[in-house]
Amino acid sequence: MTLFARLKDAAGSDWTDYAEHEFVRRLGAGTLPEAAFRRYLVQDYLFLIQFARANALGVYKSRTLPDMRAAQASLSAILDTELRLHERICARWGLDPQALDREPEARETIAYTRFVLDCGAAGDLLALQVALSPCVVGYAEIGRALAPRGIDAIAPDHPYREWIADYAGAEYGAVAEAARGRLDALALRFMPEARFDELAASFAAACRMERDFWQMGLDAAGD
Amino acid sequence: MTLFARLKDAAGSDWTDYAEHEFVRRLGAGTLPEAAFRRYLVQDYLFLIQFARANALGVYKSRTLPDMRAAQASLSAILDTELRLHERICARWGLDPQALDREPEARETIAYTRFVLDCGAAGDLLALQVALSPCVVGYAEIGRALAPRGIDAIAPDHPYREWIADYAGAEYGAVAEAARGRLDALALRFMPEARFDELAASFAAACRMERDFWQMGLDAAGD
Amino acid sequence: MTLFARLKDAAGSDWTDYAEHEFVRRLGAGTLPEAAFRRYLVQDYLFLIQFARANALGVYKSRTLPDMRAAQASLSAILDTELRLHERICARWGLDPQALDREPEARETIAYTRFVLDCGAAGDLLALQVALSPCVVGYAEIGRALAPRGIDAIAPDHPYREWIADYAGAEYGAVAEAARGRLDALALRFMPEARFDELAASFAAACRMERDFWQMGLDAAGD
Amino acid sequence: MTLFARLKDAAGSDWTDYAEHEFVRRLGAGTLPEAAFRRYLVQDYLFLIQFARANALGVYKSRTLPDMRAAQASLSAILDTELRLHERICARWGLDPQALDREPEARETIAYTRFVLDCGAAGDLLALQVALSPCVVGYAEIGRALAPRGIDAIAPDHPYREWIADYAGAEYGAVAEAARGRLDALALRFMPEARFDELAASFAAACRMERDFWQMGLDAAGD
Repeated sequence: MTLFARLKDAAGSDWTDYAEHEFVRRLGAGTLPEAAFRRYLVQDYLFLIQFARANALGVYKSRTLPDMRAAQASLSAILDTELRLHERICARWGLDPQALDREPEARETIAYTRFVLDCGAAGDLLALQVALSPCVVGYAEIGRALAPRGIDAIAPDHPYREWIADYAGAEYGAVAEAARGRLDALALRFMPEARFDELAASFAAACRMERDFWQMGLDAAGD
Repeated sequence: MTLFARLKDAAGSDWTDYAEHEFVRRLGAGTLPEAAFRRYLVQDYLFLIQFARANALGVYKSRTLPDMRAAQASLSAILDTELRLHERICARWGLDPQALDREPEARETIAYTRFVLDCGAAGDLLALQVALSPCVVGYAEIGRALAPRGIDAIAPDHPYREWIADYAGAEYGAVAEAARGRLDALALRFMPEARFDELAASFAAACRMERDFWQMGLDAAGD
Repeated sequence: MTLFARLKDAAGSDWTDYAEHEFVRRLGAGTLPEAAFRRYLVQDYLFLIQFARANALGVYKSRTLPDMRAAQASLSAILDTELRLHERICARWGLDPQALDREPEARETIAYTRFVLDCGAAGDLLALQVALSPCVVGYAEIGRALAPRGIDAIAPDHPYREWIADYAGAEYGAVAEAARGRLDALALRFMPEARFDELAASFAAACRMERDFWQMGLDAAGD
Repeated sequence: MTLFARLKDAAGSDWTDYAEHEFVRRLGAGTLPEAAFRRYLVQDYLFLIQFARANALGVYKSRTLPDMRAAQASLSAILDTELRLHERICARWGLDPQALDREPEARETIAYTRFVLDCGAAGDLLALQVALSPCVVGYAEIGRALAPRGIDAIAPDHPYREWIADYAGAEYGAVAEAARGRLDALALRFMPEARFDELAASFAAACRMERDFWQMGLDAAGD
């Protein structure tokens, strides 16, 4: 059993409240109000900037070149790929890329990102990766759950088809798989069994903040 | 004009929404539901633990013995005095000190404390003190505003008299005055005028998170 | 077997080159040139300022009140007691306390202190305590070795009697014993056996920098 | 006058003792013993790993995407280009790339790298860049000084021609020029004039540790 699977089990309803949130269900069903998705997109852009900082912290905290290169790959993936992808998607949703940087961070964005950054700054690489994992690995699991028969089974005019395709796809799946493996490798070096409960508490708290993040999107639709 | 006064001015309604929040008004009028105050007290206890960490960060970030000793004094004030005071007040409000540590942090508690810790970890001493100041200095201003004619003018049976007396009192007033002076001294060393806007944005964000913290208390009363 | 004992064993001659350095032997024999001791004293004062920062980092990195209070006690011991003691000893050795702050840090002082601070900033509490331990625990072991039959067996006019008495004494012995216990407690939470080698390498490096620190003292005597 | 020029002026002989060190002169004259260069190369490899961590810290400490991308570019330059270049040069000098990672860091390597990392972890982006600049900008100035009439004027069989060509070249010159510009831009945001002395002291200390680094190379030649 992977560490990620153990953390999910221990989180119980904190995990399912996040992974099966109404925002997710309606996104999958194509009934999510556009205003909710738009709010989510803008905040997710600001979120990614902080996540890039968290991955830079991972490079700094590393002691070996392989650890450094693994964290740097995540950092580059965000700064060079994901943020530009986001700017493109945002543009298609009528969100001026220029305007994104001026948007204030929502409290839900601040709460989760600063929580992760503090886990990383005060703790070790494992504490950092555990706090990141509901997002990094969770999105792949959520994406796959929304496309159980593959992305081709989703109607071409589904309004959120592109988002689902990204996170259900093989490329992101490989990112998540690497993150699962990294958690297990770090646990061998830094987690005696006595430490599990502390990490599980941090994981559950991160799941609750991810749930709040979806809710922030829904709240913007005012229904 | 002190830096704190400039920051307040620049924050505008972000400051007044915090300093004159309904929670504050009803606390002053003695009409705040007990459930709201109790919720606030518990979370404020968890908040202080993180604020102690922020002050420890201030010692670590210092380069001179006077800076170190100033930050250490704040750290000791929290660990040796305020937390024990809190345990006493909580006990009087029927909150088992043992239970405090088991209570999960509210999202509003996490948002503000981790925001401050991240400002401090990623920035310099000034960035840290600015993010702390809506709390450290703000509470003194709020306390005084609630006791404009002094604490003796407040009825002995006012349910929140003790809280008001603490923050309106001369002892806490001196703490706030020292913090104001420290901000000005740090600004001389670390703030060219071009930096003001960045610090003002951080201060305003901190005020919004303090406002959310009061609101969390009110929400617990369910009215 | 305590973790400290295991680390010493693994360090081998890196440990003995430090603990039985010529500076130590001559200090014990009373034949250490005064210039060597004076150089050591001044740099040890600057060293302690950085060690206070390292202990503040320990408070910041803590997640529980007991961990925070343990680190705060070490911080206070340095800022409130040791540094003032040092100023007193320095004064008796003709070193103007005012002048101490103006003295530049020797490269040996920088090397060890910044190494420890980096272990702590990038790693966890255990990484920090391991890097501190050659100093914190080592000085007690060195002190005792210099006074095998107790401090009373040392001639009253021994030039370094006071230094030996401090570190061979019961009070400092209790500090070292607490530090040994803290290492063991942290290892239970954060050290799977697979992590031992990494910590042992860090401990050995710290011992080599402590040895360099003694040598810096000797070199000042120019003999 | 650029901030870098002011820092050099203020450093006085600390700067010239580094930039015109005997190691540099003999490297330029082609009379540097091979053992000295080899020792330098190995330690410079270990040095770069820590400098990559310092640049990752720069990404983490950034607050804006342009700041993050500037620091990430430096990080990538080290991890993706310089380290691999180093492995290639080392191989040509008979240094097995595999063996480099097993080599212990010299005290001179630890002193400078951990000093820089601590400046960055405890201070702001400007403190970090100032501590890095004797290396990043200094090497370009040293390279140019060794090739006053261009690299083509240096004999093809000069044993250190490749090293000089790298650091005197246009590509590295552009890196240094960007770093000079970045220092000036950061100073506008973070350096009131009152802060200059503190930064100058840090710069001078860094120069002294760079000088020690050359000396470590010379010492290996035993002449």
